[in-house]
Amino acid sequence: MRVEHDRAPALSGASALTNVASERVRRVRRLAKRSARSETGRLLVEGPQACREAALAGLVVDLYLTADAAHAHPEIAAATDESGGHIHEASAEYVRAISTDAQGFVAVAGDPWSGWTVARSLDRLVRLAAVFEQIRDPGNAGTAIRSADAAGADLVVFADQSVDPAAPKVVRSSAGSYFHLPVVRAGMIEEAVAPLRRAGLEVLAADGAADLALGAAVLERPAVWLFGNEVRGLSAAALAAADRSIRIEIHGRAESLNVAMAATLCLYASIGQLRAD
Amino acid sequence: MRVEHDRAPALSGASALTNVASERVRRVRRLAKRSARSETGRLLVEGPQACREAALAGLVVDLYLTADAAHAHPEIAAATDESGGHIHEASAEYVRAISTDAQGFVAVAGDPWSGWTVARSLDRLVRLAAVFEQIRDPGNAGTAIRSADAAGADLVVFADQSVDPAAPKVVRSSAGSYFHLPVVRAGMIEEAVAPLRRAGLEVLAADGAADLALGAAVLERPAVWLFGNEVRGLSAAALAAADRSIRIEIHGRAESLNVAMAATLCLYASIGQLRAD
Repeated sequence: MRVEHDRAPALSGASALTNVASERVRRVRRLAKRSARSETGRLLVEGPQACREAALAGLVVDLYLTADAAHAHPEIAAATDESGGHIHEASAEYVRAISTDAQGFVAVAGDPWSGWTVARSLDRLVRLAAVFEQIRDPGNAGTAIRSADAAGADLVVFADQSVDPAAPKVVRSSAGSYFHLPVVRAGMIEEAVAPLRRAGLEVLAADGAADLALGAAVLERPAVWLFGNEVRGLSAAALAAADRSIRIEIHGRAESLNVAMAATLCLYASIGQLRAD
Repeated sequence: MRVEHDRAPALSGASALTNVASERVRRVRRLAKRSARSETGRLLVEGPQACREAALAGLVVDLYLTADAAHAHPEIAAATDESGGHIHEASAEYVRAISTDAQGFVAVAGDPWSGWTVARSLDRLVRLAAVFEQIRDPGNAGTAIRSADAAGADLVVFADQSVDPAAPKVVRSSAGSYFHLPVVRAGMIEEAVAPLRRAGLEVLAADGAADLALGAAVLERPAVWLFGNEVRGLSAAALAAADRSIRIEIHGRAESLNVAMAATLCLYASIGQLRAD
């Protein structure tokens, strides 16, 4: 279906997909599994916000949406069509059969970071990067990607048994930021850090036990921040790999901050000083 | 069961609760509903972290835990016992029947903020407060309470059709911070703001469309920050009620920040300047 610019493709209704037991539903739903994503290099994208950003990035291969959803957000089908993606009107039951978190929109999209490594991401200028070690909660992970994007980071790395950043809930929780900056996987922390150190970045560990407080830290050099697991914090190997450890001040009685909050504060503190150059 | 100080009460195993169909399970589980919480002034507290903080605050009336959970975190039963709460060993199935998010621990606790208003919270000194207007996601709401606590805020207000801050998922997502600082409800935004303005606080609206950037804002006066709905932002009434509107700089391509992230950045920016007095 090709339409003129700036117009959302019209949906007929007559040909809407309805067979929830179809082979197609089964095939799309398989992308919720990591193995299927690895095999195909494709993602399952859920919800209007993430589908919009995937479509604007020209990555949507197949968009499934209800007539109501198409009416509410015509720009998503328009952007999909613009970049040659296929648009499939479907019943609400059909879209829900693919994902209960669809809110009327699911897409199969190419994963822009499939097969990327930290080294490859250094083909572009990286002045601010975030490495997460063993981040496990998909919602936290997606929020952290969104914050890294907002803070102007150039790279996000998920190291050492972190959740798969291409998992549907991570992509959805990132509100589409997954499509805005490289989000790559690494093995153990040193594998993530070594190329960044060679590229001249200072390695900063976010560590609640550090002497140096974030509010007192000079952060004028390009840097990579290391953030640890939600419960255990950073590993000894990560702390040893860092040039400096920095803690976020806890003023009240909370024991710590959520890892996505910590990343937001640290990355914004860095960008504030980097931009002030 | 009373024991000496610093010793966790011993669990016998023999008398563990196992009847998942019991009236007791039904009664405890009812506290997941707002109406039951309002009637009783009690909360349903899920998971070790929130149960620990409720117990340390002396608020636990009944603690239900498995033998394994008791062994892993003996301090929770000890603190419950210390303040006169009842400890009930229960089977894993029993605890799960009360809440699937229990991780071995659920408690019935007094709600420390039941019946509190903004005006009443001003009996204590309030230098930094956060008002959320129509915050809807329980996970965001809990994370925001945790961040407000960490940032040293003195008060959190949930106004105008926000999620109930006493809902189990909010309390759990707050990692126990719900028990650390007053978390009160208000009606429309002006009802929340008026007493705080009379108490001398500057009213600051977090608004992505504002001219003044957070990094450039002077924040030396005690202040109340207003944060809006996840999708729509602040209402016109809230923007009109504010002395100043301030935006968080978006350096990358993200459209906005999650409301809990925005609150974290704004409250930390304020406390940094308030503490520098």
